Amino acid sequence: MTALKKDTGDALMDEMLALGRAAKAASLKLAQAPREKKDLALKAMAAEIRAQAPKILAANERDMAAARARGLGAALLDRLLLDEKRVDGMAQGLEEVAQLPDPVGRSLGAWERPNGLRIERVAVPLGVIGIIYESRPNVTADAAGLCLKSGNAAILRGGSESAHSAAAILDCLQEGLCAAGLPKAAVQRLPTTDRAAVGIMLGLVEYIDLIIPRGGKGLIERVASESRIPVLKHLDGICHTYVDRAADPEMARKVVLNAKMRRTGICGATETLLIDRPALAFTKPILDDLIKAGCEIRGDAEIQALDKRVSAASPEDWDTEYLDAILSVKVVDGVGEAIEHIARHSSHHTEAIITADETAARRFLSEIDSGILLWNASTQFADGGEFGMGAEIGISTGKLHARGPVGAEQLTSYKYIVRGNGQVRP
Amino acid sequence: MTALKKDTGDALMDEMLALGRAAKAASLKLAQAPREKKDLALKAMAAEIRAQAPKILAANERDMAAARARGLGAALLDRLLLDEKRVDGMAQGLEEVAQLPDPVGRSLGAWERPNGLRIERVAVPLGVIGIIYESRPNVTADAAGLCLKSGNAAILRGGSESAHSAAAILDCLQEGLCAAGLPKAAVQRLPTTDRAAVGIMLGLVEYIDLIIPRGGKGLIERVASESRIPVLKHLDGICHTYVDRAADPEMARKVVLNAKMRRTGICGATETLLIDRPALAFTKPILDDLIKAGCEIRGDAEIQALDKRVSAASPEDWDTEYLDAILSVKVVDGVGEAIEHIARHSSHHTEAIITADETAARRFLSEIDSGILLWNASTQFADGGEFGMGAEIGISTGKLHARGPVGAEQLTSYKYIVRGNGQVRP
Repeated sequence: MTALKKDTGDALMDEMLALGRAAKAASLKLAQAPREKKDLALKAMAAEIRAQAPKILAANERDMAAARARGLGAALLDRLLLDEKRVDGMAQGLEEVAQLPDPVGRSLGAWERPNGLRIERVAVPLGVIGIIYESRPNVTADAAGLCLKSGNAAILRGGSESAHSAAAILDCLQEGLCAAGLPKAAVQRLPTTDRAAVGIMLGLVEYIDLIIPRGGKGLIERVASESRIPVLKHLDGICHTYVDRAADPEMARKVVLNAKMRRTGICGATETLLIDRPALAFTKPILDDLIKAGCEIRGDAEIQALDKRVSAASPEDWDTEYLDAILSVKVVDGVGEAIEHIARHSSHHTEAIITADETAARRFLSEIDSGILLWNASTQFADGGEFGMGAEIGISTGKLHARGPVGAEQLTSYKYIVRGNGQVRP
Repeated sequence: MTALKKDTGDALMDEMLALGRAAKAASLKLAQAPREKKDLALKAMAAEIRAQAPKILAANERDMAAARARGLGAALLDRLLLDEKRVDGMAQGLEEVAQLPDPVGRSLGAWERPNGLRIERVAVPLGVIGIIYESRPNVTADAAGLCLKSGNAAILRGGSESAHSAAAILDCLQEGLCAAGLPKAAVQRLPTTDRAAVGIMLGLVEYIDLIIPRGGKGLIERVASESRIPVLKHLDGICHTYVDRAADPEMARKVVLNAKMRRTGICGATETLLIDRPALAFTKPILDDLIKAGCEIRGDAEIQALDKRVSAASPEDWDTEYLDAILSVKVVDGVGEAIEHIARHSSHHTEAIITADETAARRFLSEIDSGILLWNASTQFADGGEFGMGAEIGISTGKLHARGPVGAEQLTSYKYIVRGNGQVRP
């Protein structure tokens, strides 16, 4: 049973327990809320964010000033920054989530037993989801929106640098909940950015059903090792593109360039290119395109021999997620060796094969144990939106519960409803 | 990436790492094995268990003699005991699993995107599953069979009292694997019953994808708190049957008696009976039936007033899984109060309502957050076999990954296969 924990006398602990209890109570109401009410709240949240944009931007400016004073790097400052376009993007995101189908109450299967029992599997919310993220203020709205759509209460813990921005955004979200007659506690933030509060959060097994960390590998591994609550991990994307001997050379050029360079900072960007030895014959133009686009190439001896602008790859390169305009390139002997290399070095996120040979493709798609496998397409498609799932909260690299893009559907569980007319078990 | 761990110089640790590596390698082969090969292995395992029955029984007699010498209680001795019927039951179980549909390779959905990408979600095995169980030797065969059917390698750790029995059974299982040309390491046991080996096992995140503990609450909680690998929990079943004012009195009598007394030791047995106050009018015959069948009744004041053989329930009774011929009985005011009581005291396993009132039933089925909810049927139906799922490894009381009966399908994950013709992401 979910026994209510007693207060402990420790102020922070008691505050966290109260927050957990409030989230649990709110989650029970959300689980019963009809679609109209949830969508009304999402739209009201969006309207409130637009109306309060000046206040959100002022709060963000306080965060930015403190971050600049602390000497944060340009990349971190850019993540922290909100402008009018980004604020509007949050509002738009919430409106798009409102348009998605309701993942709660879906019938996931129904059958009748010989004894007349009618069994149905119905999607239900998970309950309470804890989201731990770095200083990207928009995650506050994105994560809360997906949790609400899927009928879950959310407990948010953003990076301390974004505290003022997150507080201003949360105000708008809670305003939207109230406008729809839903409990404010459906979306809450930790009462403090103190690390100790995160530690307590990760132990609240009675109140929180799932923890989703969003951010760098360090954050995720720390959360996973400390948490007593199940964690949905979004680890790194060491993604591979393999150009087979039977690849169409023009398609290979186009797809490889996109897979690496469209956006280098996303987890679906290709980090290692594997070239089938006979495909070396048409590899030079692929490298030319990449280098012209500003990509640094680190290759093995055969790739270096193709182009003197290629530097030597070190053993670590095969295990590195650059998230930058750098690509490691290696020659392999056929699809079998490509599969072996990927088994050893991939993070099980996304891999692509470029080939016109259906046998090679089938083997690649079947034998590799990654969440997403593409045949003749760019690894940059590894994205919930591109999959038609609407917004996503990340790409799960684990195999339990959800794998690949995690959207509103993946934030649900199910229950069995069994209808009878007095059956007893023999 | 799944980096291969280097040996440490510590003998037990190195033995465990070798076992983990072997399981992982075997799991990659199993994931590619066609249905025919897996079913052939299952049937060969069954044949070998039948052929080696005298050897298995002799090994079991050694375990039994040691257990008797140690003064184990009658219930534990009965669990440990194998006889010809139980050995044949193991073989039959494996043959039945062979008849189940292959859960691997099922298409879980397929759609096309406006850009022409064809996306398919396909079921794949989880990888390596660690099963930790108490001294019930048949679990060795049951668990290994379900893991094999679902394409997973298994690492088994049974109770030390059953070590000889488990070793003899494992021999038969590995013989069956070899007969089908599958790797012996697809089913392995820990090299020692030493507790330290379990501790190492629960940290092998590189090699084991899921841990399933089978046994009492103490075992499961210990495993869950210690494991760094995700755990599928099968916690207790504090199951409720609620008799509504609109129940058919005869149906209520029949269903309640079955729900409590058919078998009192299974997790789906009803432990608390909730009586709607107006239903007190037809509660006396329900109690009579139960008492006649040997059930002890612990009730609140109103239930005690109905029958002087009813003793007083203490507050702990509402939170107790008796697994015995004892029932706690409480009067509530309508379905709303029943739902509240269940929210506070249930273990989220299985609850039933007996009523002819569809509105009350819908509310019960919708508002209660348990894995299985029944309307006009016995809670004893909480069972994978009764659900038509074939064998089960247990009933999950968690909401992540799998909820309710865990059969071969629930031991799979999925991956996305995306087929294109040169698409790049804009």
